[in-house]
Amino acid sequence: MKRTVNVGLIGFGTVGAGVAKILLADNRPFQTGRHFEIELLKIADLDITTDRGITVPDGVLTTNVDDILANDDIDVVIELIGGYEPAKAFTLKAFAAGKSVVTANKALVAKHGDELFSAAKKAGVSYMFEASVGGGIPIIRSVMDGLNANTFEKVYGILNGTTNYILTGMARDGSDYADVLASAQKLGYAEADPTSDVSGGDALNKIVILARLAFGAALDLDTIYCEGIQNISITDIEYANELGYTIKLLAIAKRHEDGRVETRVHPTLVPSDSVMASVEDEFNAVEVYGDAVGREIFYGKGAGMLPTASAVVSDIVDIAAGITAGHPSNVERIIVNGDGPELIDFGELTMRYYLRFEVTDQSGVLADIARILADFGISIESMIQIGSDEVEHVHLGSAGGGHVQIIIMTHEAKEADMQKALSRFAELGSVNGAVQLMRVEEI
Amino acid sequence: MKRTVNVGLIGFGTVGAGVAKILLADNRPFQTGRHFEIELLKIADLDITTDRGITVPDGVLTTNVDDILANDDIDVVIELIGGYEPAKAFTLKAFAAGKSVVTANKALVAKHGDELFSAAKKAGVSYMFEASVGGGIPIIRSVMDGLNANTFEKVYGILNGTTNYILTGMARDGSDYADVLASAQKLGYAEADPTSDVSGGDALNKIVILARLAFGAALDLDTIYCEGIQNISITDIEYANELGYTIKLLAIAKRHEDGRVETRVHPTLVPSDSVMASVEDEFNAVEVYGDAVGREIFYGKGAGMLPTASAVVSDIVDIAAGITAGHPSNVERIIVNGDGPELIDFGELTMRYYLRFEVTDQSGVLADIARILADFGISIESMIQIGSDEVEHVHLGSAGGGHVQIIIMTHEAKEADMQKALSRFAELGSVNGAVQLMRVEEI
Repeated sequence: MKRTVNVGLIGFGTVGAGVAKILLADNRPFQTGRHFEIELLKIADLDITTDRGITVPDGVLTTNVDDILANDDIDVVIELIGGYEPAKAFTLKAFAAGKSVVTANKALVAKHGDELFSAAKKAGVSYMFEASVGGGIPIIRSVMDGLNANTFEKVYGILNGTTNYILTGMARDGSDYADVLASAQKLGYAEADPTSDVSGGDALNKIVILARLAFGAALDLDTIYCEGIQNISITDIEYANELGYTIKLLAIAKRHEDGRVETRVHPTLVPSDSVMASVEDEFNAVEVYGDAVGREIFYGKGAGMLPTASAVVSDIVDIAAGITAGHPSNVERIIVNGDGPELIDFGELTMRYYLRFEVTDQSGVLADIARILADFGISIESMIQIGSDEVEHVHLGSAGGGHVQIIIMTHEAKEADMQKALSRFAELGSVNGAVQLMRVEEI
Repeated sequence: MKRTVNVGLIGFGTVGAGVAKILLADNRPFQTGRHFEIELLKIADLDITTDRGITVPDGVLTTNVDDILANDDIDVVIELIGGYEPAKAFTLKAFAAGKSVVTANKALVAKHGDELFSAAKKAGVSYMFEASVGGGIPIIRSVMDGLNANTFEKVYGILNGTTNYILTGMARDGSDYADVLASAQKLGYAEADPTSDVSGGDALNKIVILARLAFGAALDLDTIYCEGIQNISITDIEYANELGYTIKLLAIAKRHEDGRVETRVHPTLVPSDSVMASVEDEFNAVEVYGDAVGREIFYGKGAGMLPTASAVVSDIVDIAAGITAGHPSNVERIIVNGDGPELIDFGELTMRYYLRFEVTDQSGVLADIARILADFGISIESMIQIGSDEVEHVHLGSAGGGHVQIIIMTHEAKEADMQKALSRFAELGSVNGAVQLMRVEEI
């Protein structure tokens, strides 16, 4: 006889409705050839009256979370409420009750991973989070299982669909950030409060999770450099394009030869003929570099009701298979509590840079800028001066009167040196406003 | 105490050496946090004297395959000899002895999948084959596990690195097929006898395996349309390019609404701005379309010593985890013996076509060609006539004397009708040699 694995879902929002839809469907491809039967026993939400377009059997909906957490019949809890609390308290309570937990909660896993994985280990249960990174892309299990013969050197990618949708829209239509954001909000690609997406915070959570799996690094979110897309102008997108680059919000983690780990999130100039540059709209792409397999790229929808629900269901099935095979925990291989490598200070990193200055076009401005860069050992790879709607390559010091834009691409330079140069630029009377700085990756 | 899972490797060629290298290394990332220890106990090959650059402990190498197949200490057999026999006999012997088998043998799995999976089911052991498709790309486990909440509508891709390397080289350098093949052979990207690659046979094996997993279809290799790249000329690559297309060898499987399955392998015109068109050199890419996740693309190295070995090792680890958790078989979910959907006859399919004619440029030739197409209900989308090194769009019947090339792109037409039209073209005295026909996919 088949063993039934009972599931309780907490959080009946968009993704929760997707999970319920898949679990309650007549056609359930994940059940083919299984020696267990997955049953959605309870759905808890504060709001159980709004119609989600899903027919839920009588007695399944509840407003009392303890109908799940204190229910001895339930083996697996799906936490889809998001945020830190009460998600964390519910998760710990589930573990303590011997229940495994599946989540899409990237913020919680990234911030409290050590505590949560430790608690799951102690309880001998599973804590799975495929849906927390890359939506429907099976990237977590690929890093943990499919590529487990590899030592990873790099994992990075476009991990936030909202910002990629906005950047793609700006580049395609030549529209301003604010306009594309407004239309993304209207279409449901951006939330009413888009802060966590556009600030890079969502991508930061995801790269922290990937760095834990790929490098065994338990990183502190607050120590990682994170910059969003709010200050990217269509001007920068167009100049980058002329230079052969496309601007993407990349989340990057690399292991250095000394074993330490580099992690950062920021708008990045990537070569326009790269696969990453071709990832458009709400799609995500993750590239991993393993010593055995070399480059691999995983591409798909990073968000949305059914893609995310697909990932949640695959985790439920894995846990059900584990439970019914007498091996309920999958967290042994997840490193916790700082046994892993150290984070490299952002200032220590070396990168190439794109700089855009708006200057009063008077004799000596270019010389002043070049002098400051030279003072910090930063060498210029190329320079373009743009004025009066035309783009022309100029020699240092050849500028006349009026207002012009100067675009500089540097050779590799140290971030700390670049920051010092930025402070010095701010002191130049001929430079108007902030200098636009973006980092370049030749991926 | 940790349980040791003992492994025996049959076939110490390139991939076998890669597997031995990973399993015998000091740094074994796949062992982190595991409650078992994988040990490579024996390596069998007829040649155990050639130096593979790997230090193998004393007593591991043997020329007697029964040191593995009849060895009670060995839990898992890795079959890396390729081909049908003796690989199949060894595999069945391993199953009968209660051993699970890991293979990279796409030909064997594609041709004898029903027999082998049935035998594994009967013996209650695992038969795993991640390395058989897409080299180091974890596509098998993604389709079987990571995306198991999905009903698949389509799976297709560039599944052969050798042919993609050749097509990329031809397009980049404007070189002939024979020249690029020769240089690929020199660099190790093509074998001395490249037939199974360039004929499409290797890609056919792989799409048959994917169709079994995605659609539960147990397909007969011999009934599937398969065409290689041997007849692609640089002329076609260039004309396709002018029309906005790139020629790739695609292996395609789709599920139709009536439940039947379409499967085919042939050179295909894909839009030059598609992700598939951007897959270059020896890389592979597989796109799957699932009802929950939508489009997902997996990109990476489809062959080579370490990428393929990476996939083999991930299977060994999965089997070891299963064995030590008391759940030794993974084949329950694999459908065997024609329980699955039926293959649609190739002639029934409808596609768009690229046709290239070399004609004697006399009045009425275009009219004759257009008449034949019209007779079979095939409508022309666009036409180009090329003569004397220039490309010009022409109207029907406007051609003068001499030899010219005519390129026609059709609207959707039925394959059987197109084949009938081809027979009729052969009867036209003004058409020289064979008509070049390629199929188009707007992916």
